[in-house]
Amino acid sequence: MLTGDQYKDSLQDGRQTFFEGEKIDDLAGHPLLGQTVATTAAGYDRFYDPAPDATSPLMTVPSSADDLREMIPLLHEAGMMAHVTYTSIQTLKTAAGRMNDVKPDYIERMDAFIAEAQVNDVRITQCITDAKGDRSLPPAKQDDLDSYVRVVDRQRDGVVIRGAKLHITGASFGHELLTIPTKAMKAGEEDWSIGCAVPVNAEGVRIINTTYAPRHADTRSFPVSGTHHYPEGFVIFDDVFVPHERVFLDGETAFAAVFAHSLGLWERLGGLSAFVEEADQLVGLAQLVAEANGTAGIAHVKEKISEMIIHATLIRATLEAAIENCSVGPEGAAFPNELFTNAGKFHAAANYNHIVRHLHDIAGGAVLTTPSPADFENEQVGELARKYMSTGPDIDGEYRARLMHTIRDLTADSYGGWKFVTNIQAGGGLYAQRIVTRRHYDLDAAKLKALQIAGLAENDDH
Amino acid sequence: MLTGDQYKDSLQDGRQTFFEGEKIDDLAGHPLLGQTVATTAAGYDRFYDPAPDATSPLMTVPSSADDLREMIPLLHEAGMMAHVTYTSIQTLKTAAGRMNDVKPDYIERMDAFIAEAQVNDVRITQCITDAKGDRSLPPAKQDDLDSYVRVVDRQRDGVVIRGAKLHITGASFGHELLTIPTKAMKAGEEDWSIGCAVPVNAEGVRIINTTYAPRHADTRSFPVSGTHHYPEGFVIFDDVFVPHERVFLDGETAFAAVFAHSLGLWERLGGLSAFVEEADQLVGLAQLVAEANGTAGIAHVKEKISEMIIHATLIRATLEAAIENCSVGPEGAAFPNELFTNAGKFHAAANYNHIVRHLHDIAGGAVLTTPSPADFENEQVGELARKYMSTGPDIDGEYRARLMHTIRDLTADSYGGWKFVTNIQAGGGLYAQRIVTRRHYDLDAAKLKALQIAGLAENDDH
Amino acid sequence: MLTGDQYKDSLQDGRQTFFEGEKIDDLAGHPLLGQTVATTAAGYDRFYDPAPDATSPLMTVPSSADDLREMIPLLHEAGMMAHVTYTSIQTLKTAAGRMNDVKPDYIERMDAFIAEAQVNDVRITQCITDAKGDRSLPPAKQDDLDSYVRVVDRQRDGVVIRGAKLHITGASFGHELLTIPTKAMKAGEEDWSIGCAVPVNAEGVRIINTTYAPRHADTRSFPVSGTHHYPEGFVIFDDVFVPHERVFLDGETAFAAVFAHSLGLWERLGGLSAFVEEADQLVGLAQLVAEANGTAGIAHVKEKISEMIIHATLIRATLEAAIENCSVGPEGAAFPNELFTNAGKFHAAANYNHIVRHLHDIAGGAVLTTPSPADFENEQVGELARKYMSTGPDIDGEYRARLMHTIRDLTADSYGGWKFVTNIQAGGGLYAQRIVTRRHYDLDAAKLKALQIAGLAENDDH
Amino acid sequence: MLTGDQYKDSLQDGRQTFFEGEKIDDLAGHPLLGQTVATTAAGYDRFYDPAPDATSPLMTVPSSADDLREMIPLLHEAGMMAHVTYTSIQTLKTAAGRMNDVKPDYIERMDAFIAEAQVNDVRITQCITDAKGDRSLPPAKQDDLDSYVRVVDRQRDGVVIRGAKLHITGASFGHELLTIPTKAMKAGEEDWSIGCAVPVNAEGVRIINTTYAPRHADTRSFPVSGTHHYPEGFVIFDDVFVPHERVFLDGETAFAAVFAHSLGLWERLGGLSAFVEEADQLVGLAQLVAEANGTAGIAHVKEKISEMIIHATLIRATLEAAIENCSVGPEGAAFPNELFTNAGKFHAAANYNHIVRHLHDIAGGAVLTTPSPADFENEQVGELARKYMSTGPDIDGEYRARLMHTIRDLTADSYGGWKFVTNIQAGGGLYAQRIVTRRHYDLDAAKLKALQIAGLAENDDH
Repeated sequence: MLTGDQYKDSLQDGRQTFFEGEKIDDLAGHPLLGQTVATTAAGYDRFYDPAPDATSPLMTVPSSADDLREMIPLLHEAGMMAHVTYTSIQTLKTAAGRMNDVKPDYIERMDAFIAEAQVNDVRITQCITDAKGDRSLPPAKQDDLDSYVRVVDRQRDGVVIRGAKLHITGASFGHELLTIPTKAMKAGEEDWSIGCAVPVNAEGVRIINTTYAPRHADTRSFPVSGTHHYPEGFVIFDDVFVPHERVFLDGETAFAAVFAHSLGLWERLGGLSAFVEEADQLVGLAQLVAEANGTAGIAHVKEKISEMIIHATLIRATLEAAIENCSVGPEGAAFPNELFTNAGKFHAAANYNHIVRHLHDIAGGAVLTTPSPADFENEQVGELARKYMSTGPDIDGEYRARLMHTIRDLTADSYGGWKFVTNIQAGGGLYAQRIVTRRHYDLDAAKLKALQIAGLAENDDH
Repeated sequence: MLTGDQYKDSLQDGRQTFFEGEKIDDLAGHPLLGQTVATTAAGYDRFYDPAPDATSPLMTVPSSADDLREMIPLLHEAGMMAHVTYTSIQTLKTAAGRMNDVKPDYIERMDAFIAEAQVNDVRITQCITDAKGDRSLPPAKQDDLDSYVRVVDRQRDGVVIRGAKLHITGASFGHELLTIPTKAMKAGEEDWSIGCAVPVNAEGVRIINTTYAPRHADTRSFPVSGTHHYPEGFVIFDDVFVPHERVFLDGETAFAAVFAHSLGLWERLGGLSAFVEEADQLVGLAQLVAEANGTAGIAHVKEKISEMIIHATLIRATLEAAIENCSVGPEGAAFPNELFTNAGKFHAAANYNHIVRHLHDIAGGAVLTTPSPADFENEQVGELARKYMSTGPDIDGEYRARLMHTIRDLTADSYGGWKFVTNIQAGGGLYAQRIVTRRHYDLDAAKLKALQIAGLAENDDH
Repeated sequence: MLTGDQYKDSLQDGRQTFFEGEKIDDLAGHPLLGQTVATTAAGYDRFYDPAPDATSPLMTVPSSADDLREMIPLLHEAGMMAHVTYTSIQTLKTAAGRMNDVKPDYIERMDAFIAEAQVNDVRITQCITDAKGDRSLPPAKQDDLDSYVRVVDRQRDGVVIRGAKLHITGASFGHELLTIPTKAMKAGEEDWSIGCAVPVNAEGVRIINTTYAPRHADTRSFPVSGTHHYPEGFVIFDDVFVPHERVFLDGETAFAAVFAHSLGLWERLGGLSAFVEEADQLVGLAQLVAEANGTAGIAHVKEKISEMIIHATLIRATLEAAIENCSVGPEGAAFPNELFTNAGKFHAAANYNHIVRHLHDIAGGAVLTTPSPADFENEQVGELARKYMSTGPDIDGEYRARLMHTIRDLTADSYGGWKFVTNIQAGGGLYAQRIVTRRHYDLDAAKLKALQIAGLAENDDH
Repeated sequence: MLTGDQYKDSLQDGRQTFFEGEKIDDLAGHPLLGQTVATTAAGYDRFYDPAPDATSPLMTVPSSADDLREMIPLLHEAGMMAHVTYTSIQTLKTAAGRMNDVKPDYIERMDAFIAEAQVNDVRITQCITDAKGDRSLPPAKQDDLDSYVRVVDRQRDGVVIRGAKLHITGASFGHELLTIPTKAMKAGEEDWSIGCAVPVNAEGVRIINTTYAPRHADTRSFPVSGTHHYPEGFVIFDDVFVPHERVFLDGETAFAAVFAHSLGLWERLGGLSAFVEEADQLVGLAQLVAEANGTAGIAHVKEKISEMIIHATLIRATLEAAIENCSVGPEGAAFPNELFTNAGKFHAAANYNHIVRHLHDIAGGAVLTTPSPADFENEQVGELARKYMSTGPDIDGEYRARLMHTIRDLTADSYGGWKFVTNIQAGGGLYAQRIVTRRHYDLDAAKLKALQIAGLAENDDH
């Protein structure tokens, strides 16, 4: 296993990563991106075990509902880079379980890749969303054939790929890019049916980062995003060679969607479990800020908090049902129930904006206009800021300011904006989640129930 | 156990029951109310076991999550009168488990009452909602002190009660009225803190029935409510004597709410399980009617059905979580998780009208304007009705008519109207379900989570 | 102009109208349908003017916003049969204004038809929705070519039509059937591009009625639908001859949609104005029943009523804007603004179920379980019913019962069910209203505004 | 009138204004706040008229619906500081019209203040929201009596006030602080019933600024907030003397709420008109980005845009109805209709988050992850960024990037977060807008309509 420092060193591997027009040669030392490195390094240290054959608990493959349940708090604690790695590994295990008809060497390669990743304690990000070009056209009909990542050359010991993968959270901060087709492919789309693992520092890989990290000289008023931010990678494969042992699919169009579906399931489970955790946090913030404002006893405030509580409970129920009704694949890997996972993720995402509206309604304008920590330290206005932010003998002005800063950071500033969009888009957009839910629902059983109450069950051969 | 015929005979016990201005002396022979008797009698016959010491499976007390789960389809099959009886028994068991501080003879009496009910295979309805008078005043401040059922006299071997209980589904069709306080009581409200069981034919009991039963000469176009309708009872206790062995609470104000809370839980579980079943039926009807109309492939129709599917899945998840996370009381009786039951029931009820809107949107105006079965038999227009209700070689006109009649009966006629209101009101109204959810949610844990992300967890003593 | 009695006589014209399997020879004398005749006759009497050249104010053509506004209360007062007649006349005027390119004799014929209708004071219903067969196929591809009304023969002095028109409110109670294509037609669909006026008693016309009229022996507990119900007609044209002077379109496919669009506009205006009126009624009922229950001061009840008030105000604003921004056609006929009319109608229909949920939530289960008027007269239970329905010295039990009956009749019984579906379907379903709103919105102007804030307005030629 | 340069000079008046812990002595030269000065100065120049007795068109008092309508685009063009000045003047005119019973010298003073403001072309901000302390307690019961601004001393020629006003947009960038009570006051709250105008540079005034202005070195990817940002002022009155001629209320508790109600009306009108304008922008962005993505023809995307269109149309209807139904006060000043203004503002605010969800759903993850303008200029990745952001021959990568940046800036970054909260809070929070709508709705008329359909209109004296 790696220590935090070893992780930091591992990033000095020649990777080509860019930010706002400049190439970044020292990620760890960059004023904004360095914080992501530091946070990730701390996560390594927290789970470090010096035993020589130790592997990270974050990289194990769950084999039961209990295993699945136990991973959830662990992953919340370990942070984003561990979470995406876990998701990558489960995606491969789930996909492998669904691919037993294709060339068995693919499955062997995946298992080997996972084993090596466990030994080396690396971080893996999932590269799925292509640039896509014109969404109304399939890959082979695009004006630019590279709009979807594709094989541009097949050589004796590997393939060469070209294209871009977008919205890859943490791409510059991991070691491997798990690159898979973004959707089902059809005959004639063999070159776009490519799944593989690519080292971040492979020749031809270039990553453009964007981030919601606060630019403020003083990040104290960003209790969440001041320390936890994970830049998005715009990952370009500019003719990158991939050796055969890292190729998990090449041309078998029938299996192109298996990876996306597997990843989708795990991304939505991860998304759902994050929503469940955050829903409680939002309830807690709403209650704390109502108490700090002196409005916790007002009927409409209680009603809004009750609605937030019901929301938190509903999505928790879907997470529980998704785990309790998990399946176990042929190799013994457990995966959550598709139906409950997708319905829960959809509901959580679709209602998030409304839940935040309640929080903003309860908290008040001070979310935006509370003085900064430095103002509280100013000789001329610091005491006055404290005086007027206080709401009584029990509610200190700086405590209340801190609540307001937290609410702003989480829901009404750059990080909050990132969440609004990510909630909707992660795991494929609201529409995709509807479709997947529909696909896994037993529509025939529902039709039979309807025929029965209509008294038509006997002659349903119309 | 009783056969259907024995059940019919058992109703000839002198009960005073009224309908639209007239006293009904022969319930079984009444043109509208007789159907309820017949349906209930058929339910008796279906579960009848001639063994001398047999008791109905519908009256057992579940002791595990599996027991709870297995009862659900059984109860749907057995019908309303069995369902309310089951709910009554579980309410008493749950209340008993929560009352171990009060006089132990109450618990003995309840157990005796349950045992006797099992032996005699009777049907029990729950009488909870009082007339209530002016809702802004407590019982003892009402202009009419009988606005809540109360003890007007205490005698050597029993008590005399007066008041009315409203919205008592099937009251005239059972044998016992389980009468409990509708809400928490306070000091000074001892007389209103009365819980007891009263035979339907007790002297002083009078029941006014209302019903959504179709009045049509030909009920074929009412595939659901034509055979399954359960009149609501407006139950009046006009100075009714109740012997001590049937009194389960008398004056202990601190425990008045225990019965209402226990009943609320079981009513909401029953309501939730009905919603879950019906949600699938509504999905099935939407899909069948879309197929019959030729619109099943249209994007916005698919979207609406997907929304209905997600709704069905969400509430199914809450039912699963409620059962999976059940508790077992001191006497071994299992009861479902309060939090998930209430949140699920709330969500199901709050969104029902919207889901029905989708069904109406998909089905079209023919829900209302489809000719009746008799029209299809008319020589002059029958063939024309069939011709124009047909939508192609595979969709017979009468089949499609039947679907439309079913949708109307379920959602857009008298029974549908009854459901719209009952869905909202059963188990205490939307507001009550919000409050109960809130009460069972761990708000302190949520506040702690909020303090943690705000970095304030250490000094949360402000 | 006709008196009510003359109207009754006019229905004895040999029309072929059916109800629940039987042909009705005396509409006025039928126990259910006779009420519709009586109500319509009373409407005639109310507006009767004995002057020999008088015409009904309900049949005038508005020429300004003020005219449009003044018609609204008049039409609400005059009832359904006057409303559909007014809608038919305005539809023809609006369509005529949009058809000035086609054969001018069509416009002459329409004007002549309107003039004659005014002189004879007849009632006209709009026949638009076809049987439609398989909705995924166009008229000429249907298994049954009569799925859309079509010309099956063209003769020297007229045409012969065949097909059916569905959901025709009041068809059996008017004199003329204004029959128009249900949608746009394309080349090859000339035979289905037929618009004409057909007398109800024309040979070959047969109408099957359905109705939400209450079947109760005592209709006092149906304060609205007990007297006001308008059966829906399933109108069959079984080879009906139409003389040329009553043909308003025959084969000009390009103009087939003009009638549907014109009717859609006026139907939606009528629908919107009804929603506006009813929204106030629902607010009023909610407030009255809250006061009667003693809950008018409770916060969540006030919140719900406030939401109902905001809804009523929003849709009133769209009606005001639709009228204020009306256009005047080439012949001087005013018609309301399409954009505001459609958006308002959509919003009103889409939110109706939710508004009713609030009313049910506030009113309580007594909506369903209040004893009937006859129960109040019963010697044994009448006084008790009154006692327990009363909620204090100021709220008489029968008054409160009446409120509950009204709410049930309007929203939770047969008529209420009819409204749930009709609200959604009238004017073409929610989807159609979205499309029409979109079509009339200035999307290019919105795009320009977006380009301006993006700083891209100059180079929007990408 | 002032030129932009004269405006800049006018800010050098000794005002005490702070930002993130530091006092700002040169507002115009501050790297962040200077932009606000520059934008405001440009607004001055745009409307400058050198005629010696010219006054700004932005400061006129409208006297008709047409006047009200014409001001709207003018104010959108002139920017925030002009808008708040206009709102302040109309608030005083409306309040004056409602205060004719109190001391007439107040009205004279207000008129004099307005006249002087017009001559000097100053900018006025409205200071309404107090610090408020514990919201469950009235001003005189607060632990800190300064929680609401109050008179702490009355002197011969004026009063001394203490307290703070929060969320004062642009407070540091205007010249006068129009300070009014935040709510109704009661007997015993005379000291808190203070309305007055205070120069920004008055002794004792201190303002702490907060801002959503982007901190990025390169603000090109902030097309809106890069140039238009208006810091919020936390305005402290630390014993500030106000001469009598600037006091508009002092102790007349009965009139304390008049100012807040008047300001509320104008703030909500301004808010509504901004929502109407922005709703079109959001529709335009959704359509442009759908076209750029190649998804404009997909059914669910069209549905979402249709929903956005209906929303934009609904709120436009309320604005039209609010203006068309305006009233004219005793002094000839027009003010919009309260009912439509409040209902429209509520609906716009309540649904904003949902509308933005649609935009995010349509636009995709590129809202967050599009490379920055500087990346497009980088030699190593610029061309690749352009290649992969392009979606076909007609959609240039940088054009599409610009759309994404605009959407992020408006809805998913600091400025977007500010809008989410401000939309809800401006004009008093959603709850306040509900209450005001309810207050202005004719509930008695609605009750009468309900009684009429219930057949109870005659005997409504229960």
